[in-house]
Amino acid sequence: FLGVPFTGLIIYSMMTGEITKTESPTIAEKDALLKRGGDVTEQSPMRLRMEKFIKQHQKQIVAGLEKVDGQKFQVDTWQRPEGGGGITCVLQDGNVFEKAGVNTSVVYGRLPRAAIQKMRVNHKALDPDVESVEFFAAGLSMVLHPSNPMAPTVHLNYRYFETADENGKTNAWWYGGGCDLTPCYLFDEDAIHFHKTIKAACDKHDKSYYPRFKKWCDEYFNNKHRGESRGIGGIFFDDLDETEKDQEQLFAFAQDCLSAFLPSYVPIINRRKNMPFTEREKQWQQIRRGRYVEFNLVHDRGTAFGLNTPGSRVESILMSLPLTARWQYMHSPEKGSREERLLEVLKKPKEWV
Amino acid sequence: FLGVPFTGLIIYSMMTGEITKTESPTIAEKDALLKRGGDVTEQSPMRLRMEKFIKQHQKQIVAGLEKVDGQKFQVDTWQRPEGGGGITCVLQDGNVFEKAGVNTSVVYGRLPRAAIQKMRVNHKALDPDVESVEFFAAGLSMVLHPSNPMAPTVHLNYRYFETADENGKTNAWWYGGGCDLTPCYLFDEDAIHFHKTIKAACDKHDKSYYPRFKKWCDEYFNNKHRGESRGIGGIFFDDLDETEKDQEQLFAFAQDCLSAFLPSYVPIINRRKNMPFTEREKQWQQIRRGRYVEFNLVHDRGTAFGLNTPGSRVESILMSLPLTARWQYMHSPEKGSREERLLEVLKKPKEWV
Repeated sequence: FLGVPFTGLIIYSMMTGEITKTESPTIAEKDALLKRGGDVTEQSPMRLRMEKFIKQHQKQIVAGLEKVDGQKFQVDTWQRPEGGGGITCVLQDGNVFEKAGVNTSVVYGRLPRAAIQKMRVNHKALDPDVESVEFFAAGLSMVLHPSNPMAPTVHLNYRYFETADENGKTNAWWYGGGCDLTPCYLFDEDAIHFHKTIKAACDKHDKSYYPRFKKWCDEYFNNKHRGESRGIGGIFFDDLDETEKDQEQLFAFAQDCLSAFLPSYVPIINRRKNMPFTEREKQWQQIRRGRYVEFNLVHDRGTAFGLNTPGSRVESILMSLPLTARWQYMHSPEKGSREERLLEVLKKPKEWV
Repeated sequence: FLGVPFTGLIIYSMMTGEITKTESPTIAEKDALLKRGGDVTEQSPMRLRMEKFIKQHQKQIVAGLEKVDGQKFQVDTWQRPEGGGGITCVLQDGNVFEKAGVNTSVVYGRLPRAAIQKMRVNHKALDPDVESVEFFAAGLSMVLHPSNPMAPTVHLNYRYFETADENGKTNAWWYGGGCDLTPCYLFDEDAIHFHKTIKAACDKHDKSYYPRFKKWCDEYFNNKHRGESRGIGGIFFDDLDETEKDQEQLFAFAQDCLSAFLPSYVPIINRRKNMPFTEREKQWQQIRRGRYVEFNLVHDRGTAFGLNTPGSRVESILMSLPLTARWQYMHSPEKGSREERLLEVLKKPKEWV
């Protein structure tokens, strides 16, 4: 990111041939300058603190997963021409993971009027009378699809969003994210362990968080067209801003959630990764992966936002899709089977703790 | 469909306890009565003529494809509780087709105000001042995914739509549809044969149709997020109403397009179905199928409309998806390979005739 010049400060007008100086630097320019100046501390803007934090955690998680799998992730670092960039780590055809992606991205850009109108529903600080505002977004997102049908897929995403006024001062800001588990075969002890670990992280901050965000997760990760949940849930939240808690408290909450990931998932994957399975069980996993694809491509707002953003890195967005999937017409599990039990739980989400 | 009583004629009000008689029967009721009265002729409403026509063609196409494959289709007949129904024919794990679906559906229902507003852009006959209008839709849609990676996937859809005023009189009406080919390996002779056959059907009606509808097809079946077409095109059109040609002429056009299907595709599938192929070529097919899923779930308006329609038959809508698909991170074909040549054509659609 070093070496980004103050491109926004001097605007050459194609229309008039004039060169204009704008009043103040963009947040992208401010941040580039700050980064050249030295380390990110607690006094730095939240943008830089969030970026530092997700990159640190990306390294820890990748290292933790490499220990589980025995193979190394492929690391791709990329830049957005419009500002920002990211690091995409993917492990494909591993010993444990058929496909695992851990991605961080940092985006600087401008939101058009239509997008501001939509976001104002939740963030009244946004000025409805401007044509566009500068924004910043940083997040870590991750999807792990293990090969073994007894081992569950897991998804995680934590993100920070902020807009700036014309003077580069923070205007609206909020946190969003969550983590959820998608098994093909249900092991109650896994579901309980996963939810318990997340609940403990939530409870440290607010006893109301886990029940509220667990419900939000069940509602969000739902394949409405099939009337079934994508998986057995976890937590999901969005638009957490100053009306919820102050910025430091919410940042601490996001940090604790992210730190809870490895303890919530590693014991599960280690229990399941070498379990025996049949060809029929592998087929069921493939069908469930088809449902995963359906949710991500039809319902997921993040995927839709990414695919509709010009210049987005499609391979980083769609790393969430499984390596393989299957759509079998009118497939229906046998009465009394484990497959049928999963469907029952997906149709009527359970309380696990 | 026989035996549907005049349910709409007598409305029992939950609010007042009163029983009201509405002025006139719905088109669903009129059609049910007409069907009981005898055969569909050229004097029957277009709704019944279209329904009869697509069902006849469904039988012919299914018979033609069973001859190609050697296996029989599974036939499911279903009813919509709200009015109408359909016939879904699927052949899965056949000798030639990994998954083939040929579906007819007939829908009677009411369009809410928001949908009317959208449709008014193209159909000024629609009354903007009513809360809802009765509508009818009938169509045949088909997707064939052959097992052999040398054999192309093909998609076809022809449909008729109409709305009725409060007296059950036809208000707006239009035809839509098209047919397009999606090869994993490009054989120019196949592309030329396919486009030539469709062009001949178009030319019988209007010399401007093929070039207009070929361009429309290239624009519509595009995975915008990847900047590549789904396949090598064919034709696509929508909203063809009285501003284009009269109803008889457009019905004749839709009939000729549908009749051109077997001659456009059967010679191709027979040439390719038994060609030798490698494991690497099969993998490429799986990756291309992933792109097919992306188009259908992210961009296709028909799929989105279907999945968002309450009470729709999801298995009939998603029969368009391949049996198996693959998403491989950062896959890129070798320089100078056949896979690379396909991508070049998908990035820049060709004229084939």
